[in-house]
Amino acid sequence: MSLEHKDFEELIARGADLSGILPSNQPSPPTQTIDMGFGGGLPAPELFPVAEIAEVADRVLRRDGSAALQYGGIYGFDGLRDHISEKIRLQDGSNVERSQVMITNGGAQALSLLCTAFLDPGDTIIVEAPTWAWLLTAMRTFQARVVPITVDEAGMDIGELESTLKDLRIQGVKPKLIYTIATFHNPAGVSMSSERRQKLVELAAEFRVLVVEDDTYGDLRYEGKALPSLLSMDDTGHVIKVGSFSKVLSSGLRVGWVVGHEYVIAAMASVRHDIGTSPFVQRTVAEYINAGYLGPHVRNLVEAYRAKRDTMIMALGEHCGPKVYWEKPEGGFFLWLTLAPEIDPDKLLPAATEEGVSYAPGRPYFTDDMGRDKIRMAFAAPAQSQIAIGVSGLARAMERAGR
Amino acid sequence: MSLEHKDFEELIARGADLSGILPSNQPSPPTQTIDMGFGGGLPAPELFPVAEIAEVADRVLRRDGSAALQYGGIYGFDGLRDHISEKIRLQDGSNVERSQVMITNGGAQALSLLCTAFLDPGDTIIVEAPTWAWLLTAMRTFQARVVPITVDEAGMDIGELESTLKDLRIQGVKPKLIYTIATFHNPAGVSMSSERRQKLVELAAEFRVLVVEDDTYGDLRYEGKALPSLLSMDDTGHVIKVGSFSKVLSSGLRVGWVVGHEYVIAAMASVRHDIGTSPFVQRTVAEYINAGYLGPHVRNLVEAYRAKRDTMIMALGEHCGPKVYWEKPEGGFFLWLTLAPEIDPDKLLPAATEEGVSYAPGRPYFTDDMGRDKIRMAFAAPAQSQIAIGVSGLARAMERAGR
Repeated sequence: MSLEHKDFEELIARGADLSGILPSNQPSPPTQTIDMGFGGGLPAPELFPVAEIAEVADRVLRRDGSAALQYGGIYGFDGLRDHISEKIRLQDGSNVERSQVMITNGGAQALSLLCTAFLDPGDTIIVEAPTWAWLLTAMRTFQARVVPITVDEAGMDIGELESTLKDLRIQGVKPKLIYTIATFHNPAGVSMSSERRQKLVELAAEFRVLVVEDDTYGDLRYEGKALPSLLSMDDTGHVIKVGSFSKVLSSGLRVGWVVGHEYVIAAMASVRHDIGTSPFVQRTVAEYINAGYLGPHVRNLVEAYRAKRDTMIMALGEHCGPKVYWEKPEGGFFLWLTLAPEIDPDKLLPAATEEGVSYAPGRPYFTDDMGRDKIRMAFAAPAQSQIAIGVSGLARAMERAGR
Repeated sequence: MSLEHKDFEELIARGADLSGILPSNQPSPPTQTIDMGFGGGLPAPELFPVAEIAEVADRVLRRDGSAALQYGGIYGFDGLRDHISEKIRLQDGSNVERSQVMITNGGAQALSLLCTAFLDPGDTIIVEAPTWAWLLTAMRTFQARVVPITVDEAGMDIGELESTLKDLRIQGVKPKLIYTIATFHNPAGVSMSSERRQKLVELAAEFRVLVVEDDTYGDLRYEGKALPSLLSMDDTGHVIKVGSFSKVLSSGLRVGWVVGHEYVIAAMASVRHDIGTSPFVQRTVAEYINAGYLGPHVRNLVEAYRAKRDTMIMALGEHCGPKVYWEKPEGGFFLWLTLAPEIDPDKLLPAATEEGVSYAPGRPYFTDDMGRDKIRMAFAAPAQSQIAIGVSGLARAMERAGR
């Protein structure tokens, strides 16, 4: 917990120090400022299906009326829970009961509830290095011990995970959660190989640790073959899958979901105190799916984001050349660049700012002092026409940021 | 925390016992089943302004488009935060900066964030007896020590509060929060007198305890003069006011708010992990207000709910006579009945169920074994035409529930 004493008088006494307690990775500023920005993991504003959402929201209100405007429940609207079950059945081949699904205020709330339900202060969570910076910030609140496992071009290093689990067992430490973004990693862009997935699920059962599979970007594949989900390989109930409509429909509806063992879902419900996600927005999302809009929309997104990714890769090759290295991601939102040694990251950030270009520095994606030679470039939100211009600005910043 | 070990294997081992970890006061079932129900604190489904909400939601999407569908921020949409500031200025005469306002997923999330920010396990929270049952359930998660203060016909007994604060100080205990529903109490229906409000605010400053003023029902006054809010009397920053659009607009939008010292709001933001309330629903609420709809709608609600209250009071007098006693509430949703000694509460509940009538038994509104002779009757949700029928069924149940 970042408030050392959770005490109002202490806050008053500290006065101007207060800014330190604020989350460091707040959502990015409004869209009009991010045209040249590669920093935030936002979906493209020009691709929101505004007219279709307006159409189905209106239908929901006029048809469902008071049911959409009344309290729902903690677990969510059954019509949407059933859509999630069906999605899991089609994509993962797993049969999921309604009791295994909860609708949440974005995937972020699902992760927060999982941590509230299972982490006591001092408990251990295993994460990837790098991992989503938001999660590391949240872990401060939960006062968890965060143990990182290296990510390479095939995802989390499962050999390192196994030896870490053994070491922890020898120390008498039972980690509570393993958090992985197995597909289209944020920030690293990579996906975990099938062999590693299989081994991870086996280790989870052997060491009796819950695995949280964050599949936020899983539906945005631009090339390559689909990989089996961790959930589909699990027959012991140790895998929990978290997803979201934020990237495939709208981040402003705040609708996500979690699927797992019914006991895990019930445990999350027992610590959920917001009386549930808005029935109005849940029904709007369900009606959008019922209308047959989601599939074609995601295919449209895949086309548009693939083009943005390829534009960014081409521009980086043209303008930045040997100064940066990356693995080409098969999906998701991010290019994860390693800077050549001749670039000084401390000089690059102010130089890029002067060029009007933003990116996410690598450091906050690690628990320790790693990542200083990394930067995350988000290609989804910027307008297609702005990407090459932004990258050329970044290249000029790199010229000026030599050691 | 109701999960004793926060451990998945423990959950599996306990198996069928799991239902015990679920919240006991889940939202009531869908509206079609509550016509004869006086149990849940739901707003009336027939009074939701469906057409106006559909109109403004459509306008928000077509005009604001991507801004409504993109991530917002933890603190909320500035346009709605400013409406809350203005409401506080007009009603309470207090000047509130934007930084003192946060928009939440209903008032419930505001309370949850306050507890997360300020309560460590074992910390003490002072509540009213009775108080909102949801809060007592939530306190199990926070592992807080809950100290009750008697409520009488003028609200919380402030003399008892003062002596309790002194006793706690002698024990070396500094309570973190005092939670009060000062106006139109849930479940007791009463409002705290002005004198007690003044004294409560003075005690909060003297003993340096934060006071949480839950004003969920404050705008629904059916008679009598408005009372000054605790917030308006506070000049030391110890009062936090929580409100909601659930009862005055729609419980299904899940939009509430909290106003307090900017440090308190920042502390709440630091433990908020859901990336904020939906910008779409926040802008819909703000547009509803901008369109001038809220004032007339609340006046309409006041007329309708006053009529329902009076119908219930008349029916109780006619059918239940001397078997029940109540204080007439000047606003809010509830009649809080004391049963005459000749009624056996354990027999009343099944008898009422057989008559097709529901109510909320008094016991869950207390921390200890009190309230067995109380029942909460919600008059807001049932259709006007059903109230007398339901009360006559309750009267028949009372006949059959003699000791």
